[in-house]
Amino acid sequence: MIKTLSEILKEAKKFHSKIAVAVAEDRAVLKACKNAINENIAEFIFFGNEQLLKTLTNELNMKDGFEIVNAENQNSAIKMGVESVASGNAKLLMKGKVRTGDLLKEFLDEKYGLKTNKTMNLVSVFQIPNFDRLLIVSDAGMVIQPALEQKIHCITNCINVAKTLRIEKPKVALLGAVETVNPKMSATMDAAVISKMADRGQLKGAEIDGPFALDNAVSVEAAEHKGISSSVAGKADVLIMPDIEAGNIFYKAMVFLAGSVVASTITGGKTPIVLTSRADTEQSKLYSIALNVLLAEGYHE
Amino acid sequence: MIKTLSEILKEAKKFHSKIAVAVAEDRAVLKACKNAINENIAEFIFFGNEQLLKTLTNELNMKDGFEIVNAENQNSAIKMGVESVASGNAKLLMKGKVRTGDLLKEFLDEKYGLKTNKTMNLVSVFQIPNFDRLLIVSDAGMVIQPALEQKIHCITNCINVAKTLRIEKPKVALLGAVETVNPKMSATMDAAVISKMADRGQLKGAEIDGPFALDNAVSVEAAEHKGISSSVAGKADVLIMPDIEAGNIFYKAMVFLAGSVVASTITGGKTPIVLTSRADTEQSKLYSIALNVLLAEGYHE
Repeated sequence: MIKTLSEILKEAKKFHSKIAVAVAEDRAVLKACKNAINENIAEFIFFGNEQLLKTLTNELNMKDGFEIVNAENQNSAIKMGVESVASGNAKLLMKGKVRTGDLLKEFLDEKYGLKTNKTMNLVSVFQIPNFDRLLIVSDAGMVIQPALEQKIHCITNCINVAKTLRIEKPKVALLGAVETVNPKMSATMDAAVISKMADRGQLKGAEIDGPFALDNAVSVEAAEHKGISSSVAGKADVLIMPDIEAGNIFYKAMVFLAGSVVASTITGGKTPIVLTSRADTEQSKLYSIALNVLLAEGYHE
Repeated sequence: MIKTLSEILKEAKKFHSKIAVAVAEDRAVLKACKNAINENIAEFIFFGNEQLLKTLTNELNMKDGFEIVNAENQNSAIKMGVESVASGNAKLLMKGKVRTGDLLKEFLDEKYGLKTNKTMNLVSVFQIPNFDRLLIVSDAGMVIQPALEQKIHCITNCINVAKTLRIEKPKVALLGAVETVNPKMSATMDAAVISKMADRGQLKGAEIDGPFALDNAVSVEAAEHKGISSSVAGKADVLIMPDIEAGNIFYKAMVFLAGSVVASTITGGKTPIVLTSRADTEQSKLYSIALNVLLAEGYHE
């Protein structure tokens, strides 16, 4: 089982995947690519404005590990990037200076064959100081108010990430504000339904239970305090957030108030998509690329 | 400005308030009271089963700083506790071995005059390792899905707590998953409306702005990254959570994953109510009592 983000980086060195960056002319994105090249985990095709890309890569003193492909405009850079992954030339896609929605719209076009029947969502892997394992969390920034079926897809996506981290039978906790089912709190109702589906064998590959309040999902002691009997209680590897507000606030709290490092991926397609946010640290961006390399090499469907 | 929970404890020693505990026969609750007596911040009236209370206080080696008043049953203990605050015999109420809902129902009975026209809510004050100030947060466990007007009451309640902590002009951030207004995210719409109300002078005593994602509410750097121009950005003293899920997950994340200490209060009534949760540490419980003593002595309306 992989227990730290630096182990993910180490594992990714085995692959050296080719990554297509759509609209790559962004200093922060290129810097992240440079770090990935230096760590020997990937090589890149930068799709975008050739002139600008040459200037920026020169300024960043980038010499090898990438090629530049000129695109007439942003739309064309997006299409070429997605096409490059669809054709198998690149192993996975990375978001450059482009809105996530615009990139996903193209990626999900049926003609590329990269779409699956699952919801795509943002999965984040947290390394929290003084916590004994990585926590896989969905969804901090993409699916606003997941309906029951979308939550199930998010769970499947998270299980894929967990398997990539060599967690054989991941423990998935469906979070709410309380660990009891309360008809006034829809998160607890969804959690109850989904965990019963898991009981009946409708969801496989993981131990799934809920509702939990966060404390009784991550602390065995807190779970015992509440007298909760569940193999997931206190030992969750995966946390399914009730909605984007809870997910995003958890994410930001962990990073900005708890000193956590995080790697993220957009999953649910045939290949994962690397998304680095401007607020991510350099280290976080590098770990995100590494995580996506592992995912791309391991979970092609 | 009070910047640590231990300063709250120190300030509370000036008052030595009398606290009525409704249904006090609970070892953890009595232990918290014992610590408060030892710290000289309060004295107590324990309403409940006299026999049981005598046994428990003996076992805990509690000698002074309290009196025991026998109640026939739980309901009677609740009534006597609330009555004791209403009559001014005790300065504030503390929840013992009783459901919060049952206690509040009695507290809010018009006959006591303890009800105001405001929503009562849970306000928590966090001391987070390596963070430069206390964060006042609403609502981690009481108001499930606050409507706009309830959010405004929660803000007013938080401002009262902030004033008690000698924050002259508290900065209040209304949180969502993003800092932009998105019609698909009701939290951002509420935040926009409330901050405009503040602009127009409809809400006073604080600088109020939103929506914010958590990072740009607590980190000046993150706010600058996003180019947000607001006196609240990065400098929030008060965080208004969009709903109980986000609030509770934030609370639990801070306590169980980030090593924070927290003091809580139920505010919005004529007097505050001390609520200690089984999962709280001894230290947290003591700080909660201290915070409520300060509130009770300072903000009677």
